[in-house]
Amino acid sequence: MEQLIQRSLSEEILDKTMMLFWEKGYFNTSIDDVTTVTGFNRAAIYKYFGGKDQLFLAMLQRFRKNVTDVVTVPLQTKTNGLKGMRDFFNQFLELYESKGLKSRGCFLISTAVDVHAHNKDVAAFIKDFLDDLRALFQNLLVYTRDEGMLKQGVDIGSVTDFLVGNLFGLMTLCRSSAPRQVFENHIGGIDNFISGLSAK
Amino acid sequence: MEQLIQRSLSEEILDKTMMLFWEKGYFNTSIDDVTTVTGFNRAAIYKYFGGKDQLFLAMLQRFRKNVTDVVTVPLQTKTNGLKGMRDFFNQFLELYESKGLKSRGCFLISTAVDVHAHNKDVAAFIKDFLDDLRALFQNLLVYTRDEGMLKQGVDIGSVTDFLVGNLFGLMTLCRSSAPRQVFENHIGGIDNFISGLSAK
Repeated sequence: MEQLIQRSLSEEILDKTMMLFWEKGYFNTSIDDVTTVTGFNRAAIYKYFGGKDQLFLAMLQRFRKNVTDVVTVPLQTKTNGLKGMRDFFNQFLELYESKGLKSRGCFLISTAVDVHAHNKDVAAFIKDFLDDLRALFQNLLVYTRDEGMLKQGVDIGSVTDFLVGNLFGLMTLCRSSAPRQVFENHIGGIDNFISGLSAK
Repeated sequence: MEQLIQRSLSEEILDKTMMLFWEKGYFNTSIDDVTTVTGFNRAAIYKYFGGKDQLFLAMLQRFRKNVTDVVTVPLQTKTNGLKGMRDFFNQFLELYESKGLKSRGCFLISTAVDVHAHNKDVAAFIKDFLDDLRALFQNLLVYTRDEGMLKQGVDIGSVTDFLVGNLFGLMTLCRSSAPRQVFENHIGGIDNFISGLSAK
């Protein structure tokens, strides 16, 4: 049984479980799907993971640590300024195929879009994620303004929300059947917008 | 039984069923949920609606006819030009509470985001919807350009995709727990963007 616990915690199995929920979402993933991926039976999943809800939350946390925290690196250093925001969005062009963004999008944003159907723990986790995301954009914009590099009259709160809305758009668009070109043009539009925030 | 069929087709019951799928999506809506809303038992649903899949597709069609085709009115007359696009997006400020956009978004876009998990009929329906949506934006932009009212150098295909991406963002953002202000600021950003397409 010890061996089973070890296996339950293996990175590979956890990654496969995360991918399953990422792709299919909470409501379209059954415990049977999880048993197929992990090789456990139902009783083992309930015993070692604590049930579907706790497993789902653990996979959200795993995604945030292993995916989101890596992808947001360009936003994490405020001195990156507007370039950090452009790098953040433009990296998705490369991640689209290579990291399977296509048809998957962002696990946290997909969950945010269904958040009313989730429990309080998931709702609180998603709220933290969205608050932190806003703060990242805002920090870069405040730095840019303080350095005198932001165009006069730009409202930082409004721009932050516009970028959050665009990230929702981008991450949901790539789950749809819209061709890659639409996704590229959306990123191009965001890139133009951010460039346009620069003081001349 | 005739009476039952009549009742099955009543607008009220169809609307309630549509709302159910709109709010909860295909995968989080069970046949039990539908029986609760419609008052039918399972057998009646299978007999008169043909099963969950056909019922879902019928509700998507109903949404397109009764909701989407009404909401896109400002986009349907190409002579509305850029103003038509601004009116289209700005109307969501009013619809947010009054028509329950909040926490529901757009049934068709929510389905588009999960389209890989749906059957061919749903996928084809969603593709048509997205193609038609693109065409609406494009027609207005082409008219605006032909009238000499579009800023030089604007690429119509790119702008169309950017607007589609923003509509995905807006319609998914309002299903999340992000406050109304974020939604308003996203619309404000879209409005600024469209205004900026105008020839001086």
